[in-house]
Amino acid sequence: MIAVDAMGGDNAPVVVVQGALHSARTGVPIVLFGEQSVLLPLLDRTEEGWRALPISIQHCPDVVTMDDEPTRAVMQKKHASLVKAVQSVGLSATQAVVSAGNSGAMLVASTLLIGRTPGIMRPAIGTFLPSYNGSLFCLDLGATTDCKVDYLVQFAAMGRTYLEEVLNIDNPRIGLLSNGHEPYKGSTLIKDAYQALKASERNFVGNIEARDIFADKTDILVCDGFTGNVMLKTAQATVKAIMHWLHQEAHSSLLSKLSLALSRPVFKKLYNKINYERAGGGILLGVRSPVIVAHGSSQAYSISQAITQAYRMVQNKGMEKFNKKITAVV
Amino acid sequence: MIAVDAMGGDNAPVVVVQGALHSARTGVPIVLFGEQSVLLPLLDRTEEGWRALPISIQHCPDVVTMDDEPTRAVMQKKHASLVKAVQSVGLSATQAVVSAGNSGAMLVASTLLIGRTPGIMRPAIGTFLPSYNGSLFCLDLGATTDCKVDYLVQFAAMGRTYLEEVLNIDNPRIGLLSNGHEPYKGSTLIKDAYQALKASERNFVGNIEARDIFADKTDILVCDGFTGNVMLKTAQATVKAIMHWLHQEAHSSLLSKLSLALSRPVFKKLYNKINYERAGGGILLGVRSPVIVAHGSSQAYSISQAITQAYRMVQNKGMEKFNKKITAVV
Repeated sequence: MIAVDAMGGDNAPVVVVQGALHSARTGVPIVLFGEQSVLLPLLDRTEEGWRALPISIQHCPDVVTMDDEPTRAVMQKKHASLVKAVQSVGLSATQAVVSAGNSGAMLVASTLLIGRTPGIMRPAIGTFLPSYNGSLFCLDLGATTDCKVDYLVQFAAMGRTYLEEVLNIDNPRIGLLSNGHEPYKGSTLIKDAYQALKASERNFVGNIEARDIFADKTDILVCDGFTGNVMLKTAQATVKAIMHWLHQEAHSSLLSKLSLALSRPVFKKLYNKINYERAGGGILLGVRSPVIVAHGSSQAYSISQAITQAYRMVQNKGMEKFNKKITAVV
Repeated sequence: MIAVDAMGGDNAPVVVVQGALHSARTGVPIVLFGEQSVLLPLLDRTEEGWRALPISIQHCPDVVTMDDEPTRAVMQKKHASLVKAVQSVGLSATQAVVSAGNSGAMLVASTLLIGRTPGIMRPAIGTFLPSYNGSLFCLDLGATTDCKVDYLVQFAAMGRTYLEEVLNIDNPRIGLLSNGHEPYKGSTLIKDAYQALKASERNFVGNIEARDIFADKTDILVCDGFTGNVMLKTAQATVKAIMHWLHQEAHSSLLSKLSLALSRPVFKKLYNKINYERAGGGILLGVRSPVIVAHGSSQAYSISQAITQAYRMVQNKGMEKFNKKITAVV
């Protein structure tokens, strides 16, 4: 059973309900957490026969907003959909949770109400980015903004364990995000982490400069949550800016307009490739059960992908395997 | 007189000599620092009549490589072109220096041999990035990787002073790079810097999330050198990756190929817009004289732009104005 925060995200609850219905149609059992008086008519309107699907509502009268300070929100809004959805996993009423809402609140709620994986000091959000000829798993992307060397070493171990145990990717290479590939490059934290990772990870390939993140030089990219978040969002902002400028150019002449119109299918394919939202959401590693943090601006498709991602982890007991292995190694 | 490190950069000395000749033709007086036995025949080969131009050679038998550890290189390679070029500014034999070589070594050499602007604790590299409808000045992009709140406050003051005094941009808005726009977002450093900047800068617009860097929300973007470097290089890497994937797509079908071929002029224009190298180089703020740190992979055009940028600052006494003003305010 997957807990879904129906009120979380820029386009909630409409796209969340659409995405949930899409997943429910494929057989994923879902509990929607949110305001019943909103969700019931929305479900009726979106899919008349929804009562035949494995989907139910858990009424929650409150909502955590994007502007809420995370810790305060989790402490004070005990009846908010996000808090209740996470809590249901902590109480084993559901097995995994998905939210496109306030990611800071998701982190706090998951740590408090589900609990950390034994031995893990800080959780990390991980997600795949496309590379030239494949992909790379990056973590942390925003869960832990103030990092110590030990945290980064654990992030590397969590990334490796997730790829090996859950996704069956053998012996992934591990790189460290820095401002140069040389071992002497980086902040003090990164320089120290370099030495620690050299000692702890057999497959450590050293520093990865941001200019090389897409160049297939590593399978796992370790970063502190602050820098990782800036990296991820800069990549997204750059894609968006290029689209914006292309659009501007398209209006500069008839030939530009025509040629870009012809190229539209190519761009569409490209956009789907680099639009990381389509991949679902980031997974929060270091808490006991699967927690998927979807992007705030997620559309129905991404929500559905995130729910399916969570369901797959529940079915193949991915998190149990991960927790068992990581607790043994850290 | 502009000192140019002829041996610095991935494509040195060929493109550096080409770029220097281009600037010299427009009347910029240049001293090329480097191995005379290499530079002389190269100059002869590139432009027969170069002896009529305001360009001369200062022989340096040694070179700082990209792999050299900066401090050690500056201490030990006293006769390297980079060190000698910077030193010539310190000795007032030249008035500004340009290098596409080891940027860490440029930083160390400039601090040691030219000296810091009085009152400035740490220097910062600043450069303009394009935004949707204009540009923004970002600093620091890699000079100071371990930052304190006071440094970031000074970076903001330096950015503002540079725009106001040197570029005549009145009252620029100042933003702080963070992992969310809310004041409670960020690492401990960034959260503290937010409060300090709110107190010190009248035109402080708050946190800028990386997803909004191109969205014209600020004129100056303050960041620590580590994160700033990752941001800049991620943007560059994303542009490169998009070009790579477009190229792949172009070979997937005849229609794709045709439409993209037609779009080539549009892409070329776009690429020129976002190729920050064309703008010259980053300026090192916080040292007494103009130091331009060009990108390692600079081509002749960018080198020439960087030299011209340095020359303009010397002519309009930009750095004197900057130093005078910043020393009074910090």
